[in-house]
Amino acid sequence: MIHSSDEFFHPVSGMEVPRFAGIPTFMRLPNLGLDHQRINEVEMGIIGVPWDAGTTNRPGPRHGPRQLRDYSTMIRRINPATGIDPFALVNCADLGDADINPADLLDSMQRIEDFYNKVIALGIAPMSAGGDHLISLPVLRALAKDHPIGMIHFDAHTDLYDSYFDGYKYTHGTPFRRAIEEGLLDPERVVQIGIRGTMYDGEDIEWGRSQGVTIIPIEEYFARGAKDVMAAARNIVGDGDTYCSFDIDFIDPAYAPGTGTPEIGGPTSFQAQELIRLMDGINLVGADLVEVSPPFDPSGGTGWLGVSIMFEIMCVLARSISAKWKGPQVANS
Amino acid sequence: MIHSSDEFFHPVSGMEVPRFAGIPTFMRLPNLGLDHQRINEVEMGIIGVPWDAGTTNRPGPRHGPRQLRDYSTMIRRINPATGIDPFALVNCADLGDADINPADLLDSMQRIEDFYNKVIALGIAPMSAGGDHLISLPVLRALAKDHPIGMIHFDAHTDLYDSYFDGYKYTHGTPFRRAIEEGLLDPERVVQIGIRGTMYDGEDIEWGRSQGVTIIPIEEYFARGAKDVMAAARNIVGDGDTYCSFDIDFIDPAYAPGTGTPEIGGPTSFQAQELIRLMDGINLVGADLVEVSPPFDPSGGTGWLGVSIMFEIMCVLARSISAKWKGPQVANS
Amino acid sequence: MIHSSDEFFHPVSGMEVPRFAGIPTFMRLPNLGLDHQRINEVEMGIIGVPWDAGTTNRPGPRHGPRQLRDYSTMIRRINPATGIDPFALVNCADLGDADINPADLLDSMQRIEDFYNKVIALGIAPMSAGGDHLISLPVLRALAKDHPIGMIHFDAHTDLYDSYFDGYKYTHGTPFRRAIEEGLLDPERVVQIGIRGTMYDGEDIEWGRSQGVTIIPIEEYFARGAKDVMAAARNIVGDGDTYCSFDIDFIDPAYAPGTGTPEIGGPTSFQAQELIRLMDGINLVGADLVEVSPPFDPSGGTGWLGVSIMFEIMCVLARSISAKWKGPQVANS
Amino acid sequence: MIHSSDEFFHPVSGMEVPRFAGIPTFMRLPNLGLDHQRINEVEMGIIGVPWDAGTTNRPGPRHGPRQLRDYSTMIRRINPATGIDPFALVNCADLGDADINPADLLDSMQRIEDFYNKVIALGIAPMSAGGDHLISLPVLRALAKDHPIGMIHFDAHTDLYDSYFDGYKYTHGTPFRRAIEEGLLDPERVVQIGIRGTMYDGEDIEWGRSQGVTIIPIEEYFARGAKDVMAAARNIVGDGDTYCSFDIDFIDPAYAPGTGTPEIGGPTSFQAQELIRLMDGINLVGADLVEVSPPFDPSGGTGWLGVSIMFEIMCVLARSISAKWKGPQVANS
Amino acid sequence: MIHSSDEFFHPVSGMEVPRFAGIPTFMRLPNLGLDHQRINEVEMGIIGVPWDAGTTNRPGPRHGPRQLRDYSTMIRRINPATGIDPFALVNCADLGDADINPADLLDSMQRIEDFYNKVIALGIAPMSAGGDHLISLPVLRALAKDHPIGMIHFDAHTDLYDSYFDGYKYTHGTPFRRAIEEGLLDPERVVQIGIRGTMYDGEDIEWGRSQGVTIIPIEEYFARGAKDVMAAARNIVGDGDTYCSFDIDFIDPAYAPGTGTPEIGGPTSFQAQELIRLMDGINLVGADLVEVSPPFDPSGGTGWLGVSIMFEIMCVLARSISAKWKGPQVANS
Amino acid sequence: MIHSSDEFFHPVSGMEVPRFAGIPTFMRLPNLGLDHQRINEVEMGIIGVPWDAGTTNRPGPRHGPRQLRDYSTMIRRINPATGIDPFALVNCADLGDADINPADLLDSMQRIEDFYNKVIALGIAPMSAGGDHLISLPVLRALAKDHPIGMIHFDAHTDLYDSYFDGYKYTHGTPFRRAIEEGLLDPERVVQIGIRGTMYDGEDIEWGRSQGVTIIPIEEYFARGAKDVMAAARNIVGDGDTYCSFDIDFIDPAYAPGTGTPEIGGPTSFQAQELIRLMDGINLVGADLVEVSPPFDPSGGTGWLGVSIMFEIMCVLARSISAKWKGPQVANS
Repeated sequence: MIHSSDEFFHPVSGMEVPRFAGIPTFMRLPNLGLDHQRINEVEMGIIGVPWDAGTTNRPGPRHGPRQLRDYSTMIRRINPATGIDPFALVNCADLGDADINPADLLDSMQRIEDFYNKVIALGIAPMSAGGDHLISLPVLRALAKDHPIGMIHFDAHTDLYDSYFDGYKYTHGTPFRRAIEEGLLDPERVVQIGIRGTMYDGEDIEWGRSQGVTIIPIEEYFARGAKDVMAAARNIVGDGDTYCSFDIDFIDPAYAPGTGTPEIGGPTSFQAQELIRLMDGINLVGADLVEVSPPFDPSGGTGWLGVSIMFEIMCVLARSISAKWKGPQVANS
Repeated sequence: MIHSSDEFFHPVSGMEVPRFAGIPTFMRLPNLGLDHQRINEVEMGIIGVPWDAGTTNRPGPRHGPRQLRDYSTMIRRINPATGIDPFALVNCADLGDADINPADLLDSMQRIEDFYNKVIALGIAPMSAGGDHLISLPVLRALAKDHPIGMIHFDAHTDLYDSYFDGYKYTHGTPFRRAIEEGLLDPERVVQIGIRGTMYDGEDIEWGRSQGVTIIPIEEYFARGAKDVMAAARNIVGDGDTYCSFDIDFIDPAYAPGTGTPEIGGPTSFQAQELIRLMDGINLVGADLVEVSPPFDPSGGTGWLGVSIMFEIMCVLARSISAKWKGPQVANS
Repeated sequence: MIHSSDEFFHPVSGMEVPRFAGIPTFMRLPNLGLDHQRINEVEMGIIGVPWDAGTTNRPGPRHGPRQLRDYSTMIRRINPATGIDPFALVNCADLGDADINPADLLDSMQRIEDFYNKVIALGIAPMSAGGDHLISLPVLRALAKDHPIGMIHFDAHTDLYDSYFDGYKYTHGTPFRRAIEEGLLDPERVVQIGIRGTMYDGEDIEWGRSQGVTIIPIEEYFARGAKDVMAAARNIVGDGDTYCSFDIDFIDPAYAPGTGTPEIGGPTSFQAQELIRLMDGINLVGADLVEVSPPFDPSGGTGWLGVSIMFEIMCVLARSISAKWKGPQVANS
Repeated sequence: MIHSSDEFFHPVSGMEVPRFAGIPTFMRLPNLGLDHQRINEVEMGIIGVPWDAGTTNRPGPRHGPRQLRDYSTMIRRINPATGIDPFALVNCADLGDADINPADLLDSMQRIEDFYNKVIALGIAPMSAGGDHLISLPVLRALAKDHPIGMIHFDAHTDLYDSYFDGYKYTHGTPFRRAIEEGLLDPERVVQIGIRGTMYDGEDIEWGRSQGVTIIPIEEYFARGAKDVMAAARNIVGDGDTYCSFDIDFIDPAYAPGTGTPEIGGPTSFQAQELIRLMDGINLVGADLVEVSPPFDPSGGTGWLGVSIMFEIMCVLARSISAKWKGPQVANS
Repeated sequence: MIHSSDEFFHPVSGMEVPRFAGIPTFMRLPNLGLDHQRINEVEMGIIGVPWDAGTTNRPGPRHGPRQLRDYSTMIRRINPATGIDPFALVNCADLGDADINPADLLDSMQRIEDFYNKVIALGIAPMSAGGDHLISLPVLRALAKDHPIGMIHFDAHTDLYDSYFDGYKYTHGTPFRRAIEEGLLDPERVVQIGIRGTMYDGEDIEWGRSQGVTIIPIEEYFARGAKDVMAAARNIVGDGDTYCSFDIDFIDPAYAPGTGTPEIGGPTSFQAQELIRLMDGINLVGADLVEVSPPFDPSGGTGWLGVSIMFEIMCVLARSISAKWKGPQVANS
Repeated sequence: MIHSSDEFFHPVSGMEVPRFAGIPTFMRLPNLGLDHQRINEVEMGIIGVPWDAGTTNRPGPRHGPRQLRDYSTMIRRINPATGIDPFALVNCADLGDADINPADLLDSMQRIEDFYNKVIALGIAPMSAGGDHLISLPVLRALAKDHPIGMIHFDAHTDLYDSYFDGYKYTHGTPFRRAIEEGLLDPERVVQIGIRGTMYDGEDIEWGRSQGVTIIPIEEYFARGAKDVMAAARNIVGDGDTYCSFDIDFIDPAYAPGTGTPEIGGPTSFQAQELIRLMDGINLVGADLVEVSPPFDPSGGTGWLGVSIMFEIMCVLARSISAKWKGPQVANS
């Protein structure tokens, strides 16, 4: 029997309520607290993590979730290229923001992990909106508590650094080194795409590769093309549980100026869409979109780009969720 | 017996949840639809009216309510000058946005009036956030349905024009001419403060005065001072039901650049606060804050100013509401 | 005998008067009212239509013509790729702005149509600068009064929606559905290029295709390439009278942030130029460039892009006009 | 017999043509070249001088005239405080921009002087819009060719410096030293109001005072008040020909951020209006408003302030012009 | 014998090197590391503290020192109102930035304290540029190590809160509570001026007053005037060692939009200057200017305001330093 | 023996001092005046030339060097694509800004030439940061004093115009015509890549080609691809001394909005990186990056792009310098 999502969990249409009207929730979905009476019906939960204590240079991603919610009211419901309507496939909701504490980094990481533990316990697949990239670590601590998982990681940076400022281990440049060390990620099932930017000494790349991480620099991506790279990526992550982490600085700063550590020479927004669409069929168990920093983007375009990318990932995630009880499907393109 | 507001209707504290976190409702109050189970307990309802079809020059106030909600998360709960805590006095809630239709001006006016008719029927005093100044007309049609009311009007413009563009009667320059013609406002109980800016021909002022409206140009305000002007204003509106309409362009554009029709030579934000605080004790039945236009304010300061002014007005309105069943009170409670 | 344009109708050179000096007219051409003594000599008229009442979300295109005139003073006279000098081919002038009424949508549409009726009666080919996309409808009502014409349409959206907000028929999302229904466009001779963005339900695309409209989504454009797509487009419109409508949101928002309904994943500015240059030889009878919205573009780059695109279209239009009495020509004159 | 201005020279009303529509001329007046057939009827000419080669720090005033024209379409026709309608008193026109050469400072000064010589020869009183403050020097060379005149000068700086960068005599910090040296200004009839900001060594002030210039620092202005200061100023300039030069940096940078050399601690826009209104009756023969620099003002408010100040000065200038053949008048307040 | 400052420690003049040229140090002074050979000659050291880990809402002050250095190149050397030339009175230098660690709040506080311990040991009076207000705590730990000192504190907020987010003691809202608890400040010799803004519960004010702190809300300041308030302040701090802490949010957000926690209803920049000038003669031993947040100020005006205020404070501080070996002096006004 | 750079000349790491901290020098290198005791050890000197007197339209590049220094603190030390660490290859330093005079164009050119004569005499290869493109002329006068050199020139414009405004020879549109006329450049060894934008009359291109300059318009670049074009360029410049001049407007304005004369249809930042990397091995003797204009870039992205391009060029230049005493090397990729 075909599972059919409940209308309660559908977005409000811009043909009925203008896009600038109403209190903005992610994708104009209902906002459900974790104690809401219908929380058990939710299959995909969009969660804000307004936190940037791991940022080593230009702060601002703490303001990301609010801007992303604002711009997300301009998203409609069907993917024009793949025909996927994620809201028709699974019950989606905005679960609000994870609890954080701007005055204490470690306490915040614990609060975030606690929040996600509850989300995971409810059987909800999380689609997170950062926040800086350090948020991925507590999310993975909740999501990969039982066994290491794979990851497709779009980023200009490896985020595999060891430490900063004389030994500090937790910054937005270190989450995946920690995650591998903690056994949350299986490095043989991790692939990083788009790496570029001037380097300190390249130790992060050496370490990652020594662990088995596949690192695809931007030049290699441009040379091989999306299809070849994503075929390799699918091979690397295989059928097992996989996370998708998307740092907005993967995309060129002409498209995404609102981020803390831009690197020139990146792909276009279309190339990003193309890559994500090629993830369709991967066994995604969660995803995040991070490093959108509104104070550094006077036009707001990075927020718009961010929610557009979130929508693309949600299409893949919805297909992955729905496949689990329905078997593989063909998108209704 | 002293009425005590219910904690359910109190704002979330920035000492508990950081101000940048969470889905933004007005003043971090609960968001209740008009069919919410506790709607009957609400005494003051904050309502967005995201509509600017009446704007004759630079559009944008349709985006006002969303920005005002965003910035309102920086408001705390007690007025430092008067000691009033409006949330302790009356049950406050965010009632969401009135229904509007950007494709049809008259239909929108009807939709807004319909929404306010329901609000009024529920016994809720409306604190509205525009939108352009034409929103005041449908609000008054609901609020003053039974009898004309008085008004204290802060603005750079009279909004008493007859028509534009060969006879068009409904623009943001005409609402109060229509309201007087329709018997919604008692012109003898209307006072306009802050009028300035170059004039077409002065017919609006002449007409207003001929109807009995008291018009206090900015020069007169500066010469007489806040106390004298507000003593006069209190005298004019008397004890009857009174509306307060506050156009953000009342304040000088150095303070409020984000508006469509700025006029130089206006008062400071402190002078605006001072004037509103001097309204304490007036029998307010509703109020609005209009013409905040985010696209024309790159720093967002006008949004912050707007919610700060809304808070000041809410203190007066809360006192007026609570006085009705408790009798007059002393502030600094 | 070769027609030679009159120097009176040539742009002022930036080598003589600096580009920041002078009152800005389109392309620094003379500004002629429709009652000017030399109006009969004009062959191509650039017309502003400062109107955005059809905008369903973020307003602002009403300010487009003024910004476009401002930036157009940076345009020189010869196309570097094709060698076309449109000002040498035909007499060009800035005809000012069409008359509009911000307080009434239907009245404005009538005023615009009236203005264009006069322009058409004078034998002037119109190059219009919007305004939102609804302006194309009254322009087509004047231009295609006698028989349906073809159209090459660059846009992220089909603008073939039926209605919004419970049945409203006139918005910037509906002009070409109306134009087909009214017999102004021959759907078999209409091609839309660049369509993308999340969808409500796809009904607009289905309806368009059922009428015979050729819709080329962005993915198809990227896969086939400019030459193949434009060869097809030329085939579709054939030799008959053809209109070109260019929505600035066709181009990716990294290049064109200043627009109301951006969609990521679009082409570059070079790709847009390439497409327009491949229109050379088509029987153009008029064109428009719409949806430039200055309030949403803090750097002004969208205005600059807009006038650069207008210049490219003007080259094609000038060749089409001049071909009518001179026969086909080789460029690089 | 009362002189009555000709309707041809009246501004277009915003009640007929929306303020965002049309090609922007100063105050929506007709644009007449110096060879226009009706140029002899013009009594007050508004002239742009888009030139900033004298700027020693942050450039940009070359873009001032275009922005000022743009914002000037928001000016209506009657002064609300004084009742003066300058367009009813004298025939006003936009005379376009003076000819300048961005590649050569001295050549530009000659071109500007030549332009103003023609304007003066036509009997037109010039109201100039800069440009940086060096423009006042060539204007005065034309205007005070026959005899030194007086000046009321609103500014944060004296502009009485001797030279910069090892002896360079022509910068925006030196025009009035040159003007006094050249016998264009009678220093005994010059008053400077609002002087403030950190000083190099104070030599400019010492020199000015030694010549007889009256310099009123901002502290003195705040202490004495507008009426007292302006009574003194009127006394200083007396009945003779007088120029008014208004540097927008006179007003506090919170009101006028868009300028190259802001100084904190300045007056408000209302205080500026008040001072100008107190000039009524002075024998003004010309005026300028300078140093509006659009690139340093993201919100555009300085342009709006600039045209509002220009309008105030135009009221005084129009009264001065009209008084010459009509005798003193009472404003129609 | 009169002490005379050394030319080596004088600022570069804008009459010799244009203000936009050169690597920006504070006030164009020489940049000396603490190990510089001439460090012992420095009497006043300007120090950046680029740190905002204490910020509970909008981050950004970490970028303050760099912007303040940039704008400080526009400062000249003599105070126009008082005639004080601080660079002539004492040897001034830019000591660079204190060492900080964005990944650890407590470690950063220790690093800052260590830096200031060295500065104090060198006998240098520190003029600091934040950073957020938490920087004042480690500065005071170094400066008031031996005995509690007095403080004149300009701010919209008391910064006397106890804790945030369930007990966190170190934020930019708590430094002076900690400083009093630690015996760094003598509360009987502390005066806070300009307090305003909505309140959580007023506990901070109650606690401060219970300790003996004098708190002057903005209304009281406006009512009493600068002279009366500052006479009281001088009385409160007396002759003992006194610190001056200036939060840029003391000034109204129209003047200072670039700050994290703006509060409307504040004083003007002139009023701020007036207050600081009235501190002349107080025994200042150090000062700071904090909370300038460049990401929230698109025009940069807050940076300009910040350095202008720093200059005013430096005049008072230079007089205090020089008085110690020269006895009281009269400014050369 | 392998030359090894001295640690004194290495950049400060962002892992030790956060990128937002400290006084910004180019690439966080030591700042050495030309009289510094270690100046003789410098092999590559980065020099700011804050001057834009040659700008014919929108000014601002005078503010370029300061912004470029600011953003350059985000550059790390190793090129990720080529493995080159320029700081390891040669001793690099920030030599400060060349002396300029904003009040006199010719004097400034002489001052710049004088500064570079000293730099060249010290044997330092200059990497300059403009300023507008006219700065290249005095730099070449110093660098090519003895014999004409070759040039690889990336730009949207040829800068080969003869004169502006009735014969003025020195603007940012004429430097290379002058340089060829003066025998500083060997036109047969000059290649210009990326030329595009509307044309006045094409005389600049005709003249250049008649002299032997190779001009590669953008269409040709897109058609041939980077490898083919750069192979041709290497052939043209051969083994002789070669200069690289990079105008930021070479790159599309979506990537580089902050420039005075943008032209749409340009390459991406990645394409620019690719081209520069293909210069490796060319005998570079100096280079410049010009036309970054901060006032026209609200997000600052152009500054970031500019320093990223500077770093790429520095890698090529460092290899060229080091090859002279070490022989050709393989990068440590």
